Amino acid sequence: MIKSGVTAPKGYRASGVACGLKKNGDMDLAMVVSDRTSVAAGIFTSNIVKGHSLKWTAQKIKSGIARAVIINSGCANACLGERGDADASSMAAFASDIIGCEPELVLLGSTGVIGFPLDMEKIKTGIKKAFDLLSCEGGNLASKAIMTTDTFPKEASKTFIIGDKTVTIGGMAKGSGMIHPNMATMISTITTDAAITAELLEKALKTAADRSFNRISVDGDTSVCDQVVILANGMAENDPVEKEGPEYDTFLSALIEVSEMLAKMLAKDGEGATKLIEIRVKNCKDRESANLILSAIAKSPLVKTAIFGQDANWGRIFTAAGYSGAKFDPDKVDISLGDLLVCKNGTGLCFDEKKAADILKEDEIIISLDFKDGDIDDRMWTCDLSLDYVRINGSYRS
Amino acid sequence: MIKSGVTAPKGYRASGVACGLKKNGDMDLAMVVSDRTSVAAGIFTSNIVKGHSLKWTAQKIKSGIARAVIINSGCANACLGERGDADASSMAAFASDIIGCEPELVLLGSTGVIGFPLDMEKIKTGIKKAFDLLSCEGGNLASKAIMTTDTFPKEASKTFIIGDKTVTIGGMAKGSGMIHPNMATMISTITTDAAITAELLEKALKTAADRSFNRISVDGDTSVCDQVVILANGMAENDPVEKEGPEYDTFLSALIEVSEMLAKMLAKDGEGATKLIEIRVKNCKDRESANLILSAIAKSPLVKTAIFGQDANWGRIFTAAGYSGAKFDPDKVDISLGDLLVCKNGTGLCFDEKKAADILKEDEIIISLDFKDGDIDDRMWTCDLSLDYVRINGSYRS
Repeated sequence: MIKSGVTAPKGYRASGVACGLKKNGDMDLAMVVSDRTSVAAGIFTSNIVKGHSLKWTAQKIKSGIARAVIINSGCANACLGERGDADASSMAAFASDIIGCEPELVLLGSTGVIGFPLDMEKIKTGIKKAFDLLSCEGGNLASKAIMTTDTFPKEASKTFIIGDKTVTIGGMAKGSGMIHPNMATMISTITTDAAITAELLEKALKTAADRSFNRISVDGDTSVCDQVVILANGMAENDPVEKEGPEYDTFLSALIEVSEMLAKMLAKDGEGATKLIEIRVKNCKDRESANLILSAIAKSPLVKTAIFGQDANWGRIFTAAGYSGAKFDPDKVDISLGDLLVCKNGTGLCFDEKKAADILKEDEIIISLDFKDGDIDDRMWTCDLSLDYVRINGSYRS
Repeated sequence: MIKSGVTAPKGYRASGVACGLKKNGDMDLAMVVSDRTSVAAGIFTSNIVKGHSLKWTAQKIKSGIARAVIINSGCANACLGERGDADASSMAAFASDIIGCEPELVLLGSTGVIGFPLDMEKIKTGIKKAFDLLSCEGGNLASKAIMTTDTFPKEASKTFIIGDKTVTIGGMAKGSGMIHPNMATMISTITTDAAITAELLEKALKTAADRSFNRISVDGDTSVCDQVVILANGMAENDPVEKEGPEYDTFLSALIEVSEMLAKMLAKDGEGATKLIEIRVKNCKDRESANLILSAIAKSPLVKTAIFGQDANWGRIFTAAGYSGAKFDPDKVDISLGDLLVCKNGTGLCFDEKKAADILKEDEIIISLDFKDGDIDDRMWTCDLSLDYVRINGSYRS
């Protein structure tokens, strides 16, 4: 056991337990507790249908402080009317009694099937058990307990210096379907021992999410339970970051790094994924065009199945750019797979099919498009669409 | 052999031949010729990347007249620079010589892989052969020759009365991936012996396409070669339809009927599809909201794989509506699968899982959502996302 993920920073304990929400007996409840009340910020799904646990968290985090995060997998606690809200509230109340804090300081997350109520007896048993197992090495167990169809747990951390103090940011995330740029994009909890104001923490989280979680796509669906929350307990004892400047920048770049590591793991672990695809656009006219093009390519089932089939069908990439809604001159576009140019100025080249096949055999594929239309570059990560995606999602509830 | 599809109306002959563009020896070139110069209209892909054959057709049809349509499958004639334009032009010139008309009266369509040039020797041999085989019973062969990954040919026709004359509309279409509402949506050719002005023909085609071809989705991709063209040769000898009124309405409703039949066949034959899904929205606030919601559900890979897996996972339907961009009150939404209510006022019901399973076993599934938010109803057709979709599209070029 090592101090990884959410327990990498000072003053956090975590655990993961099985409380019976998942039929197969896997872990399904994670708890993260800070030794003291922390500054907190969050971003939440833009879906207008919102899960009850998420609604609780989005409401309570407005205070800018929190003490703990409890996340269950196996049940989304969504679309259940008043009962769903009542369950969220009693889950927080029950946990707060045990932890010894106000219920409002307990943030919640739920992920799983929509429309089935939480089994509150199991949840309560799970919370008790999780509290008893809290450990400053428990980040890894927590990252496992929040998994649904994920095939591996996702943790990252980064240590850096602010002033003369060592500061750490750690995080965990779960995917793996329903991930597409739209504010918060999945369930992630990030912790840090930095001392920073709630305002700057929120600002940094938004900036980092735009560079990371909002730059990945698995199937374009945006879930009703997607959220990222961050706690900062100040136990690194750095001079509090209270304004933008070099210290804030240092903190922000570390947060971006941790978020990017988690985001790329999410894309790579997209349901059924066999390949991580990085899409790069160069010399776009503006940010909006770049984003439209990246999203269209990242979401195109035809592009994603071609990459799964290791088929250098670049016409589908060009087609997706063409219907993205972005305006560009198709006669200026270059397209490359890896470092192999396959289309120049909108016209297909007689490229080396053997070399293309070798490139597409790799686990990580880079698709690049040059629009020669401005100076905006951007990138997005996605994964291929495989037979296993369909197998996994054709029988998720059963 | 019967007078079906594009040869159902008077004065049209058609044929389908194999000229070697498809490696497996299947038919790959279709010809439709009217006995006399016809009034013509077309709608074309909104993709800003456009195939060369399509560009020819979109340009020439502006005259409002045409005599013939030639469509090849097996090669999209797209993204080939000047060569692609030259090939389209010489294809039309060669055919017009044989048919005995101006090149500008020969409309073209090409469908298949992007980035590979047409084999013009094969095309010319095919055109000669197709001309020799033209027959007033050849509609069915033509409908087969335009197929790519389609599993069955798509033809429809409708006979009706204008004044004291019998008038017929016939059509053929091919899909089956890359179909999503966005102006023209696939390759379709429609013929009629009605006498009607070019202006009204175009207006009727646009209205009919919006109610049919623009109401289906297979994978959300919009191809660079999608087009619908209609020819009207006047050989029914009805008093020409020159203004809106009862005769125009009769013509329009028959055209809608033919287009809807073709569109539903396209959705049902979506690549790898095992089920036709009809999505209905009721009591939406406005047309735009209805369309956003229908599109989001029809494109959602999670909804489509759940239906493939016969899994009554209605939360995914609600989720897709929620991220569609339409504004609505989630606490007022009812959702039904077939006639089984599964969600009332945004809250999941304890529905009969056995009954849900029976409904989802059917070949045609109706998903209904009631928003209780206005008086706009609309519908869209799509298909499920199956293992075969991935198999087909993972190796399309090979």
